[in-house]
Amino acid sequence: MIPKGFLFSTAEAAIKYSRRKDLALIYSDREANIAGVFTTNSVQAAPVRLDMKRIKSGKGQAIIVNSGNANACTGKKGMQDATETAERVAHGLNINPSLVYVCSTGVIGLPMPMERVRPKISELTDNLGRSNIQDVATAIMTTDTFPKIVYQKVKIGNKTGIIAGICKGAGMIWPNMATMLCFLMTDIAVEQKTLDKTLRDAVKKSFNRISVDGDRSTNDTVLIMANGTLGNPLITENSEPYNVFKTALQEVTLNLSKLIVKDGEGATKYIEIEVKGARSEAEAEKAAFSVANSNLVKTAIYGNDPNWGRIMAALGYSGVKMKEEKVDIYFGKIQIVNKGTGTGKDEKAAEILKGTKLRITINLNLGRSSAKILTCDLTEEYIRENIAYRT
Amino acid sequence: MIPKGFLFSTAEAAIKYSRRKDLALIYSDREANIAGVFTTNSVQAAPVRLDMKRIKSGKGQAIIVNSGNANACTGKKGMQDATETAERVAHGLNINPSLVYVCSTGVIGLPMPMERVRPKISELTDNLGRSNIQDVATAIMTTDTFPKIVYQKVKIGNKTGIIAGICKGAGMIWPNMATMLCFLMTDIAVEQKTLDKTLRDAVKKSFNRISVDGDRSTNDTVLIMANGTLGNPLITENSEPYNVFKTALQEVTLNLSKLIVKDGEGATKYIEIEVKGARSEAEAEKAAFSVANSNLVKTAIYGNDPNWGRIMAALGYSGVKMKEEKVDIYFGKIQIVNKGTGTGKDEKAAEILKGTKLRITINLNLGRSSAKILTCDLTEEYIRENIAYRT
Repeated sequence: MIPKGFLFSTAEAAIKYSRRKDLALIYSDREANIAGVFTTNSVQAAPVRLDMKRIKSGKGQAIIVNSGNANACTGKKGMQDATETAERVAHGLNINPSLVYVCSTGVIGLPMPMERVRPKISELTDNLGRSNIQDVATAIMTTDTFPKIVYQKVKIGNKTGIIAGICKGAGMIWPNMATMLCFLMTDIAVEQKTLDKTLRDAVKKSFNRISVDGDRSTNDTVLIMANGTLGNPLITENSEPYNVFKTALQEVTLNLSKLIVKDGEGATKYIEIEVKGARSEAEAEKAAFSVANSNLVKTAIYGNDPNWGRIMAALGYSGVKMKEEKVDIYFGKIQIVNKGTGTGKDEKAAEILKGTKLRITINLNLGRSSAKILTCDLTEEYIRENIAYRT
Repeated sequence: MIPKGFLFSTAEAAIKYSRRKDLALIYSDREANIAGVFTTNSVQAAPVRLDMKRIKSGKGQAIIVNSGNANACTGKKGMQDATETAERVAHGLNINPSLVYVCSTGVIGLPMPMERVRPKISELTDNLGRSNIQDVATAIMTTDTFPKIVYQKVKIGNKTGIIAGICKGAGMIWPNMATMLCFLMTDIAVEQKTLDKTLRDAVKKSFNRISVDGDRSTNDTVLIMANGTLGNPLITENSEPYNVFKTALQEVTLNLSKLIVKDGEGATKYIEIEVKGARSEAEAEKAAFSVANSNLVKTAIYGNDPNWGRIMAALGYSGVKMKEEKVDIYFGKIQIVNKGTGTGKDEKAAEILKGTKLRITINLNLGRSSAKILTCDLTEEYIRENIAYRT
């Protein structure tokens, strides 16, 4: 279920490991409207800085991605390498280099092994269509344990368009899409300004509301290309099908976010933390993140211990207005805290914790706003995976 | 080396575990000037709220401490229990209850087992002097692996006073003294207002600059009693010996902080992170905490991997002004990053990492301010200790 007009290819460039696909090309057979959201980290990888410039045109036609090397903290050579990579892709595809975007993920601070990347670029441009989207999703993986792909059909008037999205990202997710790459493709015709706004809204409520370990990376990028192959009248914010498109895109990004959290490094449990009854959505989000990022909460959940005191403590230091004596907390449907004190239902709650999916609902009972954060537990395996990621 | 006029006792009340000392009393044989610093968490344990009221008088004579139960999130009963405990101590010592301070540390949300605590209080008041300060430091331990005591002699005029300090705290330290109790005692006569100011300054640069896991607790308390037994002229901010006293107190709190970090849950390495060249001390502190609290940085150090890219990323998302191309980073004396890019000295740096003590120096090269944070690595053992702390 691929949106029309998109082609793919992948290659093995031995950037960090040999005998795995680590280079991928996404190509639209015509110029597409493009929009992007990038890391808020002040340290930005060379390809991120390149893409941020290019995206001002609102036009794009190809994305080249590598895993294994982040091309971050690599100085002038890093920018030269990213630019050269785009130029070689443009040459092979016979398009303007300004339509080519570059994304990298992997180790920070090592020079890109261009001697191994260069010869593979013509392989990518020559073999478009030989790989499928699954191959691309696999090529961009780092510590991910499975490729992440989401499709959605969208009815626009009497035509049916498709939104497809792939992403990677396991550790270092919070809350600004860290170590995360996401590529969205659609054949639906969408005005660039509208595409940009819709993407930003969708990212805010999906990728920006997930937490794996509280770190944020230098390379996060979400790009969407809309190539209009469907032939529908251009969607603008005021046109009728706008809401359908918006809802569909939000669903795709939310489902991709869930896949990222489920694949959190070493995670054994998928956790939804919803804070209700906050004075504003921003406060609800902040309180939920404080709980989601607490190592103590995350390890207790891993150990099936309904240690709600750690949740209370995390709410207390979140910086958000709260009154201890008003707080209610639920594990699934079991109320574990009533007006700030324990209900004694720890055994029932411990039963719920034994599952691989947990919903924690916190009501601050101070207002009407809410926000939901997706996260996972913290395990010994997380430590083991991150001890020597570089070697 | 105990300051004159202080007596101690300990007891086994089986609050969480049996056959261990879990209750302790610190007593000054005369009314002392007292000052305190308490948790900034909005969720505050009952004894914290009690002490915060009492300390307004600036006077104190006894501190009763228990481990095993935090008496936090325990509603009205919690406050009744704390008040009753203080009253019983006051009765046994024949002093005013307003001079008795109560401190608790341990599990949140369980009612204090008063039926086991009550009978032990008269044992404490009857047996003062039978225990030494080492017993007290042991009785207040939770996940600590060793008791933490620091002494310092202070020459005031032609007399020699003593400052003694004990503390507990292993996990959940950041940056506001979380799950930390500290009791400082001195026989030097210090005006209450001056005592308060000196304590706040000392805490700011010691306990507030350590990080174990980024969580902050509901029970943190630092108390200092100055009973004037030495007979020196009262020290005020303008009196000559003020600087000597201030320096000594800072040294005591800093040394206690180092002991806490060295005993971080599951830690194998003690780490000092100094940020220099910041535009302000607040920015230096914020940047250093961002690095110190990064799970990715802490696990890399555990694995002896000089993964400086994770340090750059943590600086980048710290929210502090920084320019990637100006940053220098040193592991010990080895420069690993020069103007934002790697120096290639990873092997030498990896050698330094093999030690149990590591100094990371970061120069932002943007200003003249600096700050140093003490922290430790993150290991599988941290996870194991926190999986089921309550059981």
